[in-house]
Amino acid sequence: MKPNVAAAKAALSHLDIEDKDSAIKAKSRDFFWYSPVLKDRLDHVVADFVVSPRSEAEVIEVLKVCYAHDVPVTTRGAGTGNYGQAMPLAGGCVMHLQHMNAVKEIHPGRVIVEPGCLIKDLDAACKADSDQEVRMFSSTWATASIGGFIAGGSGGVGSCTWGSLRDLGNIIRLRVVTMEEEPRVLNFRGEELARVSHAYGTNGIITELEIPLAPAYDWVEMFVAFDDFMGAASFAEELANQDGILIKLASVFEAPIAHDYFQRVKPHVTEGQSVVGLMVAPHSMDGFETFLKRRPQAGLIYRSDASTWERTPGAVFEYGWNHTTLRALKVDPSITYLQVRYGFPGHLGLVEKIRDMLSPEVLQHLEVLRENGKVMFAGLSLVKFTTEERLDEIVRLHEEAGAMIFNPHRYTLEEGGRQTVDDRQLRFKKEADPKGLLNPGKMIAWDDPDWSYDRMYAYPKLQSAG
Amino acid sequence: MKPNVAAAKAALSHLDIEDKDSAIKAKSRDFFWYSPVLKDRLDHVVADFVVSPRSEAEVIEVLKVCYAHDVPVTTRGAGTGNYGQAMPLAGGCVMHLQHMNAVKEIHPGRVIVEPGCLIKDLDAACKADSDQEVRMFSSTWATASIGGFIAGGSGGVGSCTWGSLRDLGNIIRLRVVTMEEEPRVLNFRGEELARVSHAYGTNGIITELEIPLAPAYDWVEMFVAFDDFMGAASFAEELANQDGILIKLASVFEAPIAHDYFQRVKPHVTEGQSVVGLMVAPHSMDGFETFLKRRPQAGLIYRSDASTWERTPGAVFEYGWNHTTLRALKVDPSITYLQVRYGFPGHLGLVEKIRDMLSPEVLQHLEVLRENGKVMFAGLSLVKFTTEERLDEIVRLHEEAGAMIFNPHRYTLEEGGRQTVDDRQLRFKKEADPKGLLNPGKMIAWDDPDWSYDRMYAYPKLQSAG
Ligand SMILES: Cc1cc2nc3c(=O)[nH]c(=O)nc-3n(C[C@H](O)[C@H](O)[C@H](O)COP(=O)(O)OP(=O)(O)OC[C@H]3O[C@@H](n4cnc5c(N)ncnc54)[C@H](O)[C@@H]3O)c2cc1C
Ligand SMILES: Cc1cc2nc3c(=O)[nH]c(=O)nc-3n(C[C@H](O)[C@H](O)[C@H](O)COP(=O)(O)OP(=O)(O)OC[C@H]3O[C@@H](n4cnc5c(N)ncnc54)[C@H](O)[C@@H]3O)c2cc1C
Repeated sequence: MKPNVAAAKAALSHLDIEDKDSAIKAKSRDFFWYSPVLKDRLDHVVADFVVSPRSEAEVIEVLKVCYAHDVPVTTRGAGTGNYGQAMPLAGGCVMHLQHMNAVKEIHPGRVIVEPGCLIKDLDAACKADSDQEVRMFSSTWATASIGGFIAGGSGGVGSCTWGSLRDLGNIIRLRVVTMEEEPRVLNFRGEELARVSHAYGTNGIITELEIPLAPAYDWVEMFVAFDDFMGAASFAEELANQDGILIKLASVFEAPIAHDYFQRVKPHVTEGQSVVGLMVAPHSMDGFETFLKRRPQAGLIYRSDASTWERTPGAVFEYGWNHTTLRALKVDPSITYLQVRYGFPGHLGLVEKIRDMLSPEVLQHLEVLRENGKVMFAGLSLVKFTTEERLDEIVRLHEEAGAMIFNPHRYTLEEGGRQTVDDRQLRFKKEADPKGLLNPGKMIAWDDPDWSYDRMYAYPKLQSAG
Repeated sequence: MKPNVAAAKAALSHLDIEDKDSAIKAKSRDFFWYSPVLKDRLDHVVADFVVSPRSEAEVIEVLKVCYAHDVPVTTRGAGTGNYGQAMPLAGGCVMHLQHMNAVKEIHPGRVIVEPGCLIKDLDAACKADSDQEVRMFSSTWATASIGGFIAGGSGGVGSCTWGSLRDLGNIIRLRVVTMEEEPRVLNFRGEELARVSHAYGTNGIITELEIPLAPAYDWVEMFVAFDDFMGAASFAEELANQDGILIKLASVFEAPIAHDYFQRVKPHVTEGQSVVGLMVAPHSMDGFETFLKRRPQAGLIYRSDASTWERTPGAVFEYGWNHTTLRALKVDPSITYLQVRYGFPGHLGLVEKIRDMLSPEVLQHLEVLRENGKVMFAGLSLVKFTTEERLDEIVRLHEEAGAMIFNPHRYTLEEGGRQTVDDRQLRFKKEADPKGLLNPGKMIAWDDPDWSYDRMYAYPKLQSAG
């Protein structure tokens, strides 16, 4: 069925609709351009219109109208995703949830919040109310929405302690609206959460989230420098294994990342130094200092509670997770990245093996992460981009060595995962989005169940660039 | 030098001194009788007098006077230790810190407290102040002192999350008074803590503690029943490895422990059922229930927030740690126990091996514990006591199989540990207790540096039974 955009726009004209082309273009993009591959494939993608509902009732109205007129709907939180998750591949409506940002209820250990609330605003409300904060956040804490994080993200600052969003207990409940002729409102818990969590809004719109909280502390942020990269990686890993020392971040940057890409850190490190970025609870600092003194090769070059730097670096977490790639890109636009899993128990050895094989074409950037109760590493390796073929080759070399890749140069759920359909997500899409109008092109299993994954998927209905 | 008890008593008569023989006898004992071996060796031990100082100044006075008159001093918190730690082997003065119980300062993430404060009172103060609580406590939470826990204990409820007391970060600072001619007051942090932590007061009196706090939640307490013991053990271990599910306790009881020894649980389990005792954060319950439903062999028989039991069991943590032994002893006085380390990664296999070898003479009681970032088990196995020789043989069988024993049938630091002197504790004793008057007989290295550990140590100056 051909979408009737004009009719849909007319029917929704009483809502907050964006008309200006430049604004529509801006709200049709995320940070997909981190990938030269996605930059090439998606740069032209643009919505037909953008609507910003103020309530769940207005969300339902938008979905009903777009259903009736066969208009695709792609949801937008804050548009900071890296894989084009919020980009409308077939045009249509972008539904921007910026106005749905209320923090509804704060309780001991949990909060109920609307999806469009920025993570920093959520934290501010929880701190003011009861000295609490979210367990984990994407390093885009200052700009991203909590709904976008759950729908499009995976983990981040805090995952060294609490694991990933998909781990049991890290999301309590999601309230979801379907895109049926008569949209239904469903509350998901337990096994149901995986249907819509990290599903890019392809099968339902999250209109309310209930997530756990942790105590808010005045985290001490630090940089520690090492002459030896594996020493830096071991330091971070061992620290995360100290059960009595509470941390929220442990990032590892292979030389010369800090020197070349972290402008404010540069005066304090040499080109040959690898650096660890940390967040440690203030009441764990005595324990941390004891741990540190046992490791004379570790040089504490910065601590936020006693800074000697002329120009302070700002939040240390804004050097890690995918901010590392951002900073590198600002210096060298030919840099891109890969997402690597270095699983327990061979994680340290695998990092060393990959580094020996591919450095400095690939520079190691590790984030300490917990998986099934074990400390391991997520790699967000910096890659000097030359050609797509070489990038695919580098991916293949990682996988052959045992380091799983979660490809950030792809816009589909499956290709960003493990090349298989998530059956729970597909089944729920069949129920909740019978016309296949929600964020089309992002779930291969919907459009092309027999896809062989032998090459990059190209959504047949992707708007043409011309 | 022969102690001049009369002179010491006279010099301290203005303080709170206990005169009555029955009270002196009671304050000369702890829960040593859990061990038939220690019962045999120490039953007659009694102080010459008991003094209860009200302040650090009075502690100093007691130490000065006893130093001058060569009177041994053994410190008492609440006297709930299991190895005779607080028992005055050579008589003399028992210094009871019951009056020094003030909670001095509560801050985000830490508290400063006097040693005689009962752990339950400390928790109550922190909760009322700022919804905080101690990270870990001995299951004698209701009766033990925080100073006695640090000086004589090891870990307990909360250790499944935070590790043991000896792990970096679990004690911040200890204020210690020496027993020199002029007692000195020292503040220990970092590496210094190990000098006096778990040192049985043999080298200094702790007069103030600074320890970390965690958020106080209304923990949901549960019992889960299994037809298969290894299924129960795996369940508890896997739960503790769920990074998003916050727990404070995971105890495992081999059948028929719950049926035979837990009176209020008995109506709800069969003889053949093994049971897991849990404390889970309320906001982690959805995650826990999801985890539980994936394991149909696990039967939830009790939850504190929705109890269907006619007679509720009371605190589930008072069934675990060393309360299991207490409950077993009440039914069968011939039961004793062992302390076992089932280290990662072979912990489950080792438990199975030991159980196959020794059940039901030895019944498995496991406590989930973290060690170096990994979930593993502490065993507090119930043992049907026959002879000391057989008990020693059971110890040997464990050690041969790879399961380290921390022998609770010994009253010395070394024998309760790994049969070696802790050099930091010995060196500090030389400095802080030059006359060797603090809790004599508890540190073999002080009295007998060449001891061979080929048999149970008998302190030469132990009061004679006759
Ligand atoms: C510098 C940088 C650093 C980053 N660091 C991290 C990191 O540490 N961890 C991490 O996981 N990601 C990271 N990201 C990616 C991204 O910033 C985060 O995932 C962020 O939390 C996404 O939130 P958002 O509001 O911007 O989502 P958007 O980009 O707006 O949306 C993300 C996806 O969710 C869908 N969506 C949004 N809201 C809803 C809803 N209410 N219902 C259903 N679907 C919805 C969208 O359609 C889209 O598919 C980073 C990106 C950058 C540029
Ligand atoms: C049923 C039961 C369950 C138990 N469960 C646990 C458990 O889960 N974990 C655990 O670790 N233990 C356990 N224990 C042992 C004991 O209860 C705890 O270790 C408890 O915390 C000790 O505190 P207390 O005040 O009773 O110490 P006490 O017995 O009074 O003293 C313990 C030792 O510390 C010394 N001491 C006391 N105060 C000071 C001070 N201020 N300065 C220097 N030295 C001092 C004493 O001389 C003695 O050597 C259990 C015991 C029983 C009977």
